[in-house]
This record gives sequence, C-alpha cells and structure tokens, in this order.
Amino acid sequence: MKTFIIGELINSSRAQVKEAISRKDEGVIRKLARAQVEAGADALDLNAAESMEREPDDLRWLVEVVQDELGEVRLSIDTANPEAMEAGLSACRARPIVNSISNEATRRPIIELAARTEAEVIGLPMGQVGMPKTAEERLAEARALIEACEEAGIPRERLLIDVLCMSVGSNPDQGLAALAAARKIKELGVRTCAAVSNVSFGLPRRKLLNRTYLAMLAASGVDAVILDPTDQGMMETLLAAEALTGKDKYCMEYIRYHRKK
Amino acid sequence: MKTFIIGELINSSRAQVKEAISRKDEGVIRKLARAQVEAGADALDLNAAESMEREPDDLRWLVEVVQDELGEVRLSIDTANPEAMEAGLSACRARPIVNSISNEATRRPIIELAARTEAEVIGLPMGQVGMPKTAEERLAEARALIEACEEAGIPRERLLIDVLCMSVGSNPDQGLAALAAARKIKELGVRTCAAVSNVSFGLPRRKLLNRTYLAMLAASGVDAVILDPTDQGMMETLLAAEALTGKDKYCMEYIRYHRKK
Repeated sequence: MKTFIIGELINSSRAQVKEAISRKDEGVIRKLARAQVEAGADALDLNAAESMEREPDDLRWLVEVVQDELGEVRLSIDTANPEAMEAGLSACRARPIVNSISNEATRRPIIELAARTEAEVIGLPMGQVGMPKTAEERLAEARALIEACEEAGIPRERLLIDVLCMSVGSNPDQGLAALAAARKIKELGVRTCAAVSNVSFGLPRRKLLNRTYLAMLAASGVDAVILDPTDQGMMETLLAAEALTGKDKYCMEYIRYHRKK
Repeated sequence: MKTFIIGELINSSRAQVKEAISRKDEGVIRKLARAQVEAGADALDLNAAESMEREPDDLRWLVEVVQDELGEVRLSIDTANPEAMEAGLSACRARPIVNSISNEATRRPIIELAARTEAEVIGLPMGQVGMPKTAEERLAEARALIEACEEAGIPRERLLIDVLCMSVGSNPDQGLAALAAARKIKELGVRTCAAVSNVSFGLPRRKLLNRTYLAMLAASGVDAVILDPTDQGMMETLLAAEALTGKDKYCMEYIRYHRKK
C-alpha cells in the first residue's frame, strides 16, 4: 500500500489561514486546497481551532469551501471540540477522518461520536498516564486506546495510531522513540500515522530535517503522513522512500516521475 | 558516536581514476583525496583493482600519493587480492582499514593477513552459502564470519560488518532487507557499515535515492558509511540524521552548521 498523504496546510495556526477564516476569504482556502491535491495529497486536514467560539461554524465553512472547489475529497477534521467535530463530519461528502481521539477524558465524546460514523480515526497514544516519552509508553497508551475504541464500537481496522513526533531540539531521544513506536504499534494490527514536521520545531532549515525524518518514518513502516505536500523535496523523498522500501515495486513510479521531468 | 565516513571516490572503476592510475597522474588523486577530507571524510577508500597484474604496485602508489598530499590519514585498502592488500597495508602510516574479508575461501588469506595487523576490518556477510537475500541470511553469514575472525585472532571490536546494500531496481525487497540486517547484526556486538550508493544502481537520479537511503540506514544504527562526501545533499542529510537520531545531542552541530552558512 502506498503511503497515505494528508495535506497539513489548511490550519488556523498559520497566520494566512487564520485571517482567511476570520474574513471568510474563500480564495485563500480554495487555492491551498487545490495546490495540495495537485501536489499529491490523498486527503486534506482542516483545522479552525484558533477561535473556540466560532469553531463549529468555521470548520463547517472550511469543509464546504474545499468541497465546492474540489468536489468529493477526503477530509481530516482536526479538532478537540466535540461540537466542532460533529459540525465538520456532518458536512463531509467523502469518508471523513476524525483527527483526533486520545486516552484523555476530554476526548471521550469524540470517541463516541466517531463510533456512530464510518470515519477513519486518528488516535493519539497519550492521556492515560500523560505524554509518553519512550516507545514503550507510546505502545502502552496505544493498547489502551485500541481497547477503548473497540469497546465503543470502533474496530482497529478504522484506526490510525499517531506515533507522536516531537522536536529533537528539546529532547534528543524523541526522534528514535517515535520510530521505534511505529514498528511496535504496527504489531498490534493497526495502521500508524505521523505528523512529520513536529520533529523540527524550533530548529533551522526545517525542510531538511522533515524530509530526512520522513525517510526514517517510511522505513519504520508508517502508513500515513501529515505534511506539506507542496514541499517538492518532501514529496520527492517520499517517492524515493517508496522505491527503497518496496512499496513502489521495481521503482516503476519513481522511474516514471523522472522520465516525465 | 558520530557516523564514520569513508570517502568512495578513489576507485578505479571510475574512468577518471582508472586513467590517473595508469598514467600515474598524481594531480587527479591528490585533488580527490583533499576534496573528500575537506568535505568531512574520516577515511578514504583506495581501490586499484582495474589492473589485476599491477594492482599491488598501483595500490601502494595510491597510498603514497594520498599520504604525501594529506599526511597521516586513515585509509581503507579495498581489494580482494592478498598481495595487493599486503602492499597497501604496509605503506599506511595511520591505522588502516582492511576492505574486505568474507566467508569466501578466496578471502581466507586476507583474514590471516588482517589478523597479523592492528587494522580495522570490513567483513562482507556472504560466501558461506552464497549471496544472502534476506536479513536472516545476512545475520547467519555475519555470525559465521565473526567466528572465523575470532578463531584467526581478530576480535569483534575490530570488525565492521557490511550490511550489503543492493539495488532496489532489480529486487524490491533488498532495501528493507539490508536495513533489518543492520539492526540484527548490531545485536551481535559488532559495528556495521554500508556502501550506500549500491542501492540505486541502474536507476535515475541516484543522489536522491542515496541520501534517502542514508537517512534510513542512520535510523537503523549503522556505524560507518562508504559514500561520496563531496555530494552536499548527502552530507547535509547525514547531519540532519545525526540530529534526528540523537547522535548530535540537542542538534548542536546541526545548528552550528546552519549558523555558519
């Protein structure tokens, strides 16, 4: 299976998007949506969390604008607010992705909401004890989360466990910890995903760190990645990584891409 | 420990080097030697295998020219010919690297020769059964080779087991096989090394594949790499990889490099 790519650019923590949401400037959102899909995104993450109050309306607006631009497109509804999650999910035409649930008590309503849908669900392996530091702690949290989901009626086939990428600028061990977690969590029979760019937070030349880490994540068997698909170095690294890990058999896609250029 | 970098450019399979050796053109060799060390190589591989007959003399000449240019520099004597190995090793001023031994009967004299020196030794995990395909086959060959070395008087601390990078163009499984081998062989208490660029043989845009695979190898814990250190993309990937794997604590080297630029 090819690595599933979720485009991260429509996120209200980015100034341009925050402003576009508050002004209801469709043009900015349409452009970001189209650019990411044209660059190879399989789904688009939508986040409108900067305004707590208006979040349900803002998120619904994002879903509608993006679908108006692209038609049926897979969307990842990125919120910790159950009301906003419900608003976002109910506006989706294609199968949505719930981003995210965790073992935190505050995310419980989102687990129950997700269970009533057919959505795929991203689960953060944290919250039972706190924020995990080691691969083993991530694994223990993943186990607990899978169990909670299955009790609530979300089978593990619908789950993607996030490996929790964290900045190596503040903690040198976190890079290898998330990679080891990816391999261990996969053995539980769930897919894994990674928000790659968290690893380089606070460091210079983040694109170099991000694409180097993407190669490592791909070698650890990560199934889905959340990243900026308009970063050509990132996408070319992923293309190379799929050739190197045998997902792109005999490098057919890799060779085709370079023949076209 | 920082990843140990062996520069691969002085190899007679490259037309420029083959010609320089046959004409005894010191200038070409001096330039390649200096460029690689300035780019960050910790040792230089020397290969003069294109002419079987003259190989001992050619290899000794390479050692002398490079040492005349750089003074004491670590050299990796790259030959399957015991006579050439002896000629090369005896000319080395710094601690040499024997490249390489294996389980093939023809390499036995080189094991005995290496045992009489203090050299570090690169071992290819192959030859007992043939060319290994899986990580498990590489591991079995590595075990046999370590045993043969210890019997001959080469303790495992002096050994670097090559993980056998092979082209993913002809065999899609070889990329992951060598990575898994790196992790397994390390558990035997030996260091590992990798000739990175073999992975991209026959494919377009080899530098992209090589640096992506380098990131994967670094995440698998490889201790030494044989590569082209004058390839800036490769060296920047290694710098990023060391930050991401905690070898470069708090990204000090990574940050210093980008501050200087």
